[in-house]
Amino acid sequence: MSYNLLKGKKGIIFGALDEKSIAWKTALRCHEEGAQIVLTNAPVALRMGEINKLAEAIQAPVIGADVTNMDDLKNLFEAAMQHFGGGIDFILHSVGMSLNVRKGKHYTDIDYAFNQKTLDISSMSLHRVLRTAWDLDALNEWGSVVTLTYIAAQRIFPDYNEMADAKALLESVTRSFGYHYGNRKNVRVNSISQSPTATTAGSGVKGFDGFIKYAEKMSPMGNASGEDCANYCVSMFSDLTRMVTMQNLFHDGGFSFTGVTQAVIEAMEK
Amino acid sequence: MSYNLLKGKKGIIFGALDEKSIAWKTALRCHEEGAQIVLTNAPVALRMGEINKLAEAIQAPVIGADVTNMDDLKNLFEAAMQHFGGGIDFILHSVGMSLNVRKGKHYTDIDYAFNQKTLDISSMSLHRVLRTAWDLDALNEWGSVVTLTYIAAQRIFPDYNEMADAKALLESVTRSFGYHYGNRKNVRVNSISQSPTATTAGSGVKGFDGFIKYAEKMSPMGNASGEDCANYCVSMFSDLTRMVTMQNLFHDGGFSFTGVTQAVIEAMEK
Amino acid sequence: MSYNLLKGKKGIIFGALDEKSIAWKTALRCHEEGAQIVLTNAPVALRMGEINKLAEAIQAPVIGADVTNMDDLKNLFEAAMQHFGGGIDFILHSVGMSLNVRKGKHYTDIDYAFNQKTLDISSMSLHRVLRTAWDLDALNEWGSVVTLTYIAAQRIFPDYNEMADAKALLESVTRSFGYHYGNRKNVRVNSISQSPTATTAGSGVKGFDGFIKYAEKMSPMGNASGEDCANYCVSMFSDLTRMVTMQNLFHDGGFSFTGVTQAVIEAMEK
Amino acid sequence: MSYNLLKGKKGIIFGALDEKSIAWKTALRCHEEGAQIVLTNAPVALRMGEINKLAEAIQAPVIGADVTNMDDLKNLFEAAMQHFGGGIDFILHSVGMSLNVRKGKHYTDIDYAFNQKTLDISSMSLHRVLRTAWDLDALNEWGSVVTLTYIAAQRIFPDYNEMADAKALLESVTRSFGYHYGNRKNVRVNSISQSPTATTAGSGVKGFDGFIKYAEKMSPMGNASGEDCANYCVSMFSDLTRMVTMQNLFHDGGFSFTGVTQAVIEAMEK
Repeated sequence: MSYNLLKGKKGIIFGALDEKSIAWKTALRCHEEGAQIVLTNAPVALRMGEINKLAEAIQAPVIGADVTNMDDLKNLFEAAMQHFGGGIDFILHSVGMSLNVRKGKHYTDIDYAFNQKTLDISSMSLHRVLRTAWDLDALNEWGSVVTLTYIAAQRIFPDYNEMADAKALLESVTRSFGYHYGNRKNVRVNSISQSPTATTAGSGVKGFDGFIKYAEKMSPMGNASGEDCANYCVSMFSDLTRMVTMQNLFHDGGFSFTGVTQAVIEAMEK
Repeated sequence: MSYNLLKGKKGIIFGALDEKSIAWKTALRCHEEGAQIVLTNAPVALRMGEINKLAEAIQAPVIGADVTNMDDLKNLFEAAMQHFGGGIDFILHSVGMSLNVRKGKHYTDIDYAFNQKTLDISSMSLHRVLRTAWDLDALNEWGSVVTLTYIAAQRIFPDYNEMADAKALLESVTRSFGYHYGNRKNVRVNSISQSPTATTAGSGVKGFDGFIKYAEKMSPMGNASGEDCANYCVSMFSDLTRMVTMQNLFHDGGFSFTGVTQAVIEAMEK
Repeated sequence: MSYNLLKGKKGIIFGALDEKSIAWKTALRCHEEGAQIVLTNAPVALRMGEINKLAEAIQAPVIGADVTNMDDLKNLFEAAMQHFGGGIDFILHSVGMSLNVRKGKHYTDIDYAFNQKTLDISSMSLHRVLRTAWDLDALNEWGSVVTLTYIAAQRIFPDYNEMADAKALLESVTRSFGYHYGNRKNVRVNSISQSPTATTAGSGVKGFDGFIKYAEKMSPMGNASGEDCANYCVSMFSDLTRMVTMQNLFHDGGFSFTGVTQAVIEAMEK
Repeated sequence: MSYNLLKGKKGIIFGALDEKSIAWKTALRCHEEGAQIVLTNAPVALRMGEINKLAEAIQAPVIGADVTNMDDLKNLFEAAMQHFGGGIDFILHSVGMSLNVRKGKHYTDIDYAFNQKTLDISSMSLHRVLRTAWDLDALNEWGSVVTLTYIAAQRIFPDYNEMADAKALLESVTRSFGYHYGNRKNVRVNSISQSPTATTAGSGVKGFDGFIKYAEKMSPMGNASGEDCANYCVSMFSDLTRMVTMQNLFHDGGFSFTGVTQAVIEAMEK
């Protein structure tokens, strides 16, 4: 399937770890739709080496960058602009990490130094990315930026832990920077709040499998897959959605506006 | 511009009154994207005759239907299915009318018989349309239904009057029927909450021009135009947004998440 | 327990059917807090006779009124003002009825004449009550109006059926009329979105018992009881909450902002 | 005015800087309502010395604590419990500070080290406070915790800058910790989203005066004052609101649900 919806567009994609990653699938779909891509990830993730398969498949350079390091980000954007021979049309920010979750710390017992890293990597990194683009005037008029988030920013899912707070902060940065970038250059910034998705990153969360099953039962259309999400990102990067900005867009088969389903009631009655 | 994004898809479009109508522009864009269309409007609107120009331009039959009349709706869907030789892939519901607004009644002084008509035409008509499709099993798997709404459903704009309540009811019907249709057949139902748009229908609202200017100043990217909205509808009818359902999608240049802008503060300081 | 929090205040309470009713419990608590009360209900409900016990206990006159009849409402407010010897300080609107639910009609198969009655009785009745007060200038400065609603207005609970739409409409009327009454006379209008409560009215809903248990498990503090709700209403009628208006206030032990609980996950894993 | 609504209750109040502070007014009102209070603030704020007037007026000890220092917080809670001879019933967290705002940094040009301090002081401090209480089991069953926030967490007010993001994070912590504390001990945690208020802290924000006037015109009942907020806090600390938790409660004269007012339209037309 290709509509050439992104023909001539250039984008940077953060966070493609392996073929299960939403960022990976999005990079593939953007390429199919005619976009040119630059891939980036943290140096530690690049060392896994998986990303080179993707890079080859879509003829995209891979430029490492620590999203908490302004020099790395400046280098990334400058190299990308040089590669593209001009400005950037879209960015996918698919970045998140919680040391407290990894270490199995309960929300009421988090380590505050870890938490600070979580917020820096998972939330303020979007500010750093946008600010780097802002300073370099790297984004073209009508550019589109998407970050991935989760409904725990609105409602508590206990095992999601401090990442709920990080996503709430991330969504606020989306609105705040979206205001300024919209004003300045008609660049839109939105978050997509995706169904729980069985990625390598996601599977680190305690109780994740049980939770995916619950979400599946609580969504009238079932959970949205990573492929679905890639398609939705394509629509958000295209010229069809130019006036959508500062939004948090639920992409979840209806989970977000469902209070209960017959399937859940039945499962509980057993 | 055409991506063939809706190639092979068939849709019914309600509410194309004249060339300023969002429904009119959406019909044109859907046609450009390869869709086949059936146009419909209330008999009284059809008498204006403007719609025939559109019908000719996109080779679409026009089938009149009073959205509060179940026989009319049944006839519309049966005729459309016969015309298409099969099921329907998308519906645009762009319908609304307030007798109390037209008659200049203040919100605290509305006529309740008029109000009942407002709710029937502007809100419950979506239920009637979806239920007709449901009973005839007229919508194809992965079908997409969009209705147009306004942010007055969330926050008060005094001149919008009882239409605020009608839009809140409409958005609830969107969620309620969306739940059932998603469950049954993966059909999605969403509302698009559009910037104030200078249509023939909109201009009937008292203070509308002043309000459009205010919204323009309060939106980081300015107001979304009817053409922008048509593009957004195309994306929602396409296969790129299959898992988005039961949502109210703001399409407003950022108005919905802006508390105040520098432009408004300055205008008020004068 | 009494703080004399409502000493000297006069209120009208709609919807005390029997001792399980939230309105009944609220009337008792308001009386304990020093308020004078007028009770009202639909003529058909009054015929049950239970309300006379309450009336006696709190020395309140009972004045019947069909909330869809403007003459009845005018008579009610005039009689109440005569009884109180002056204006009214608070109103509890606890009114709702769905013929489609009673008749067991599925949401996709509702009778539209029944639906119109549901909306008139359950939603527009708040407009009628407020408009009657408005026309008679019956509410005192800093008056407080509360209506009871349910979270189905925001998220779908399939068995709640068309009442979800009715509650969404009711909440919009709350905001719309709240805007005007706040502007005119500092009267506040809010809705309380209460946990599912085992009242005589509530128990008519299919699957209600199963649902109460689910909500209990999904609320960090458990479901809020009718007595809790009466207390919350007292706080909203008091002078401590004067600047809260046009809000939908969840009173539900945390249900509204909980995505899932350990208890639900465990129940589903069995 | 006193109802003895908080008779026998014990509370800690953070953030009373001078008599304009909402925390100061809340401390006074809680005392009037029969509560015993412990006052706390950052050592640097205590040096101003104003708080001693308040301490004397309400016979409350003052115990300094840096909210980013776990030892300070532990000491505060232990000293408060010793002073009270038992557990704590309520906490007011009125804490916030932005070095980037103070230094006049634009949102797109913030210093990230400052930002980290802003988030630690203004947002994660609530986590630190609650976690200290949690570890010491310092809060009594049915305790109530309130933090003060602002609507910039939901919608952008450009001059509010990074504090918008800090408040979004704060509100998420409110929900997250509220979930756990509700589950464990029926302690409720809520935020009150207050009208802009002319406090000494608030007046540091650029364009604050112009903004207060705008908010006044955009609120059907006008802005809520600090005294109003103190009253609302009293209601939230009382036993009348036991089942309200994890909520963000707008206390703003209707600002939050008003899209535009006649007064704003008129001011802009001049």
